[in-house]
Amino acid sequence: MSIIAFITDFGTNDHFVGSMKGAILGIDPNATLVDITHAIAPGDVSSAALALLLSFSDFPKGTIFVVVVDPGVGGDRNALAIKAGPYFFIGPDNGVLSLACKKAGKPIIRSLENTRYFRKPVSMTFHGRDIFGPVAAHLSHGVAFEKLGPEKPSFVLYQNPQVILKGNCLQGNVAFIDRFGNCLTTIKATHFADFNPQQLRVKIKAQKAFPVCSCYCDVAKGKAMGIIGSAGFLEISINQGNAAKDLKLKIGAPVEVYK
Amino acid sequence: MSIIAFITDFGTNDHFVGSMKGAILGIDPNATLVDITHAIAPGDVSSAALALLLSFSDFPKGTIFVVVVDPGVGGDRNALAIKAGPYFFIGPDNGVLSLACKKAGKPIIRSLENTRYFRKPVSMTFHGRDIFGPVAAHLSHGVAFEKLGPEKPSFVLYQNPQVILKGNCLQGNVAFIDRFGNCLTTIKATHFADFNPQQLRVKIKAQKAFPVCSCYCDVAKGKAMGIIGSAGFLEISINQGNAAKDLKLKIGAPVEVYK
Amino acid sequence: MSIIAFITDFGTNDHFVGSMKGAILGIDPNATLVDITHAIAPGDVSSAALALLLSFSDFPKGTIFVVVVDPGVGGDRNALAIKAGPYFFIGPDNGVLSLACKKAGKPIIRSLENTRYFRKPVSMTFHGRDIFGPVAAHLSHGVAFEKLGPEKPSFVLYQNPQVILKGNCLQGNVAFIDRFGNCLTTIKATHFADFNPQQLRVKIKAQKAFPVCSCYCDVAKGKAMGIIGSAGFLEISINQGNAAKDLKLKIGAPVEVYK
Repeated sequence: MSIIAFITDFGTNDHFVGSMKGAILGIDPNATLVDITHAIAPGDVSSAALALLLSFSDFPKGTIFVVVVDPGVGGDRNALAIKAGPYFFIGPDNGVLSLACKKAGKPIIRSLENTRYFRKPVSMTFHGRDIFGPVAAHLSHGVAFEKLGPEKPSFVLYQNPQVILKGNCLQGNVAFIDRFGNCLTTIKATHFADFNPQQLRVKIKAQKAFPVCSCYCDVAKGKAMGIIGSAGFLEISINQGNAAKDLKLKIGAPVEVYK
Repeated sequence: MSIIAFITDFGTNDHFVGSMKGAILGIDPNATLVDITHAIAPGDVSSAALALLLSFSDFPKGTIFVVVVDPGVGGDRNALAIKAGPYFFIGPDNGVLSLACKKAGKPIIRSLENTRYFRKPVSMTFHGRDIFGPVAAHLSHGVAFEKLGPEKPSFVLYQNPQVILKGNCLQGNVAFIDRFGNCLTTIKATHFADFNPQQLRVKIKAQKAFPVCSCYCDVAKGKAMGIIGSAGFLEISINQGNAAKDLKLKIGAPVEVYK
Repeated sequence: MSIIAFITDFGTNDHFVGSMKGAILGIDPNATLVDITHAIAPGDVSSAALALLLSFSDFPKGTIFVVVVDPGVGGDRNALAIKAGPYFFIGPDNGVLSLACKKAGKPIIRSLENTRYFRKPVSMTFHGRDIFGPVAAHLSHGVAFEKLGPEKPSFVLYQNPQVILKGNCLQGNVAFIDRFGNCLTTIKATHFADFNPQQLRVKIKAQKAFPVCSCYCDVAKGKAMGIIGSAGFLEISINQGNAAKDLKLKIGAPVEVYK
């Protein structure tokens, strides 16, 4: 009995999440089920890959992540289970698992070909209920990872936009905007670890620079800043405000850090 | 200790779902609680009946379904517990349980009249917390189904639109549109089991016919098809697209299958 | 192992709720996690305080409520754990816990200063994952309340708008509007317990008076009424309709009860 955590594009208005959980509990009634999000836009593999990257390490060892953003369902894409670090990741081979698995470390990849662990009959449109969920449930219930299918040497990688260092300037992009309007960038704290923290400045578009702060409250209410967010990435935020809205930032917008 | 699965029109913005679950866990702290959906439009009995029909059989035997879409709360409608197939269904007697109970088979109906299993005092506006949830919790905690109240011979039936066979044409309707824009119809795979699968065609409005496929990927990206969905009903879908939007289909739209 | 129930402004689109739950389950894998709501508007302390007030007493004794609506995160506001009645409440000291703790009775307040029960490192932006959640998990796992930090004599109070009695008229306000359009007011049933129930009338704006009913069905479909809702407050409702929309009521709108 393990924790099984979900990221999908199913939404929560339809019955899909419930059906997947019902199928899982029929196999392992003692699994602990946790929703990370079901609000990924339909087929948006890169957002799901990022949501997994930002959250997986907050879960305890042994957690099984089921990530179903699967525009190729029923086609010839592979279905995978990956052991990486102390975690298991299950989902389609379209890159959705790749950012987290690379960070978790030393991914061992299995192709889900042992149909013994599928729900029967397997529909052509709902592998969350029929393949990914049941395989996770069997793993949670004690089936050995090795039994899920043959080992594979590689998997589809989702390419995160690169962070570039040009002279005294780190160049990255907005990768994710949260509910509060905080704009998480591709730039990590580790990227500028050797910069002088007192002199760090963040610049977006042609607008004037913001300081990099350690607390929202370091600037006045309504003022912008850079801040290292809870997953270790630089974020553009406004104290008690909505940075994305007020600064008109969208996903992909360029962000620069100067020392 | 059982699985208790929920379909309501409570939404998830207000505290109602939490209050109902709190009341349940006070009676059976070991029940496993699963949300199917709380996003049924207020008072939309037919959508809730359909959501239950589409999902109940994905859950393990013994699951207790609590369905609270109850525009007549506090009035003289009956409250029911129904045993059908290996499942229990609890909710108001307004048809919301009827499609699933008919499919699950041999419904045995009890009227919830034993107030011993209610939360006290019973409010006039929130029977999910005060009657349906607590009764489910007592059932989960080991109370015999027979103790919930006297047996009733019948319950209110929600009439699903009929599928009609005219010559070589099956006539049905769109019954449900999911998050991806897939249009689930009233026509089941079993309705055309004796049709030649190579010659099956789906027709909507006066538009040209689509093939019935076994995988989204059987047609090019952006092309429409009929496909048997995960609950056994014919759906109108577009490969990696939104059929409801692109084909301007709404609930109730006529759909025909030709052999 | 306890029930841990959540009220936050995190929303459910981002990974924040999942991350907080992951951190909790790493400390107490047997905690039962219940979402009350995550849809509080960002930083809306008063709505969160009210949602907690309306729901906490529906939960069993020993439940731990984690309430994270925390616009001052990372600043110098205190973090609290409060024992009140048979419950525990954890959150920032900004008033969000105060309405429920006053009603639960005899609050004993501890300042969360024992960093032993925090997740390390503590981020500056996500104390739900790093402080409030982990402290709740340790409490659930058996750590004594007294160990969480030193006792404090008082906490920030959120001032609920007062109900005023003028002659034969109780004056209050709309405090909360639910998904169905029911308008919960600040006036409690106990406020007019000595009024003659046959003669009670509710008045909003200059509009004509409504009766106070005991069931939605006491008036015709589409007609307005006052009714005592499930948490003991007077609500303005329309039988099978949306009172907020049809009567153009907003939060703060004045409501009067006449005897």
